[in-house]
Amino acid sequence: MSEVLEKGRAAKKASFLLNGKTTAEKNEALARVAEQLLIDQEEILAENAKDLELGKQNGLSDSVLDRIMLNEKRIKDMSEAIQQLITLQDPVGETLETIQKDNGLIIKSKRVPIGVIGMIYEARPNVTVDAATLALKTGNAIILRGSSSAQFSNQVLTNSIHRALAKTNLPIEAVQSIENTNRESAKELFHLNDYLDVLIPRGGKKLIDTVVKEASVPVIETGAGNCHLFIDESAKPEMAVTIAINGKTQRPSVCNAIESILIHENWFNQYGEQLVAALKEKEVEIIGDEKVCQKVPFAKQATEEDWYTEYLALIVSIKVVSNVEEAIEHINQYGTRHSEAIITENQGHADQFLTSVDAAAVYHNASTRFTDGFEFGFGAEIGISTQKLHARGPMGLKALTSSKYFIQGDGQIRG
Amino acid sequence: MSEVLEKGRAAKKASFLLNGKTTAEKNEALARVAEQLLIDQEEILAENAKDLELGKQNGLSDSVLDRIMLNEKRIKDMSEAIQQLITLQDPVGETLETIQKDNGLIIKSKRVPIGVIGMIYEARPNVTVDAATLALKTGNAIILRGSSSAQFSNQVLTNSIHRALAKTNLPIEAVQSIENTNRESAKELFHLNDYLDVLIPRGGKKLIDTVVKEASVPVIETGAGNCHLFIDESAKPEMAVTIAINGKTQRPSVCNAIESILIHENWFNQYGEQLVAALKEKEVEIIGDEKVCQKVPFAKQATEEDWYTEYLALIVSIKVVSNVEEAIEHINQYGTRHSEAIITENQGHADQFLTSVDAAAVYHNASTRFTDGFEFGFGAEIGISTQKLHARGPMGLKALTSSKYFIQGDGQIRG
Repeated sequence: MSEVLEKGRAAKKASFLLNGKTTAEKNEALARVAEQLLIDQEEILAENAKDLELGKQNGLSDSVLDRIMLNEKRIKDMSEAIQQLITLQDPVGETLETIQKDNGLIIKSKRVPIGVIGMIYEARPNVTVDAATLALKTGNAIILRGSSSAQFSNQVLTNSIHRALAKTNLPIEAVQSIENTNRESAKELFHLNDYLDVLIPRGGKKLIDTVVKEASVPVIETGAGNCHLFIDESAKPEMAVTIAINGKTQRPSVCNAIESILIHENWFNQYGEQLVAALKEKEVEIIGDEKVCQKVPFAKQATEEDWYTEYLALIVSIKVVSNVEEAIEHINQYGTRHSEAIITENQGHADQFLTSVDAAAVYHNASTRFTDGFEFGFGAEIGISTQKLHARGPMGLKALTSSKYFIQGDGQIRG
Repeated sequence: MSEVLEKGRAAKKASFLLNGKTTAEKNEALARVAEQLLIDQEEILAENAKDLELGKQNGLSDSVLDRIMLNEKRIKDMSEAIQQLITLQDPVGETLETIQKDNGLIIKSKRVPIGVIGMIYEARPNVTVDAATLALKTGNAIILRGSSSAQFSNQVLTNSIHRALAKTNLPIEAVQSIENTNRESAKELFHLNDYLDVLIPRGGKKLIDTVVKEASVPVIETGAGNCHLFIDESAKPEMAVTIAINGKTQRPSVCNAIESILIHENWFNQYGEQLVAALKEKEVEIIGDEKVCQKVPFAKQATEEDWYTEYLALIVSIKVVSNVEEAIEHINQYGTRHSEAIITENQGHADQFLTSVDAAAVYHNASTRFTDGFEFGFGAEIGISTQKLHARGPMGLKALTSSKYFIQGDGQIRG
């Protein structure tokens, strides 16, 4: 039996055992994991050093090496994040709906764990701990499949979690880590329909696209963010500029950063220079349509490809539009259904934009950078879903639950 | 451009227009469709006759021909079902959650249409009308891909819907029917990720398995039902027998019928004959394990395969078990996560069973036949989901919605 199949079966079995566990039992286990990471710190750093050494030999970039790197502070942060997770409300068991039928049947829909979650991810070993503890909190078993670039770190962290679970009422088989990080093990996970209830990819666009395209198990797509800011005719200039700068420059490498600014032509003619000056000051490269390029000498001419591009860098594409309809149409064509904002003093235009733009989060007079599980107050985030089913937008603990109908009768049959 | 691609694009465009439509506009359109079906009755019956004629020539079975067949009564029923749908509450626009942040941001999660729904189905032309009107009620566009055996019926019904929509504010492109019913058109739908938000297969296990296995678009699996009844030691004999007979024989061809009965050995020794006599009277064939075969001379010996089998006929497999744990383990191994019931007077065993059995609906002292959108009071049913994501169990109108975060600010940026 292959490693993936064996661990899939073990995870499924563990998931059945997890079903009946109480919040207290799960929190107790989390506390043990938080402790164990600190106890095992030296071992974790030693194994992490192996990944870093191999990464250097393999010529990984500094930014990737930084994502792989653990240190005392980062281990402490992981441990503290678990303490934080313990304080969050357990969604499992919540009654979502009660239906009382005339024949006396009582039908209750309650939140239950999903079962077995698969997580496929790149570099960052902190995802190992993060994903495993979110799964445990919600009564799910998890199969972790990290990348080869962090394999020593991922294994030592999994071992640490197992040591902690061995001291508790939760089965250690609840957390499975695939050691084989070649393409075959990923492919096997894609088709592990008998044991896997959902697969969540976390990483770059290429990884996500591959999982969406190939997997026959249900996938939650945590997607790319080609986010737009539309500055309407009536937008207050200072507000628009402040939000544009925040959305573009506060953290350009993340999915909720602004990649493209659409500007009503009247606003552009009146305040365009002010915005351009502010972007220039922040060293943002501007790629513009014809009207922008006419006015901004250092702007590059945008190609069709640019409107589709998530730069994740200090680059922004700018297009001048005639009205809110053109902005909506552009976003629905080129956007990735993540986060989209309008700046306007016209409530009618705001309503039209928020209703018609197809995205997980739509903003009126605020920065797209708020699309984030912590900013939304969920206390945790598994990822940001850009698909329509199950969960959309920032996913907190509830996104790791399913529902189940519990029906109580006293002998009812169907007539 | 292929038919599927062209209709996919048109449906996506229509879905954007549907976003802003009011409940009144949608209900008005539904009323026109209900009317039009009656106006077009003669034409519909003429086209349906072509399908029936071809079906006879191709040697389709009487039961399949009956599924394809339309008559005045069935058209009237379809029209009345739409009148009923009009009276149901529109889930779109419902506020699911409101989060007020300290910085003044107001975050609201609201129900919105999914976008474009794909429906792939066999024989029954009534699904064409059913699926199209459920989609319209929830503001979704739909792409229908029926089977060749009902192609004339499906097209004439779609034409009728288009005629009705032409009289309303809703775009006729909201309902698309694929005329090309070969394998290629299905395959194209499986991978229409740019235009399709979800694909729902309705039909036999083979169709569903193919869609789950091949599609890269998100799928809602409406599944098979290998449903069990567990009769515990303390079960009241009359209640257990009544529910067994109802679950097995009231309508054996449906997914929520009972396929397998697990019996505590003490109950079996005391009341087994009573149950067997009742099943025999209803002409139910019994396939049993060794203990059952010893006691029931006409029972056939069960193979491993039998425990996996959804008979959809007057056949039942019976197994004697030692305790509730063995019953739970058997169901979690062989079940299809649809509907599972325990008959017991022991509340502890009931709780254990309901918690530990992994299924969309779990019953204590009631028949599994109640797993149904109409029985649950939803007033409509798109199918019964046996997967864990998005919707589980009977799917009503809410299952055809997604959610979207609407964020209202007054200039907030992230620090």
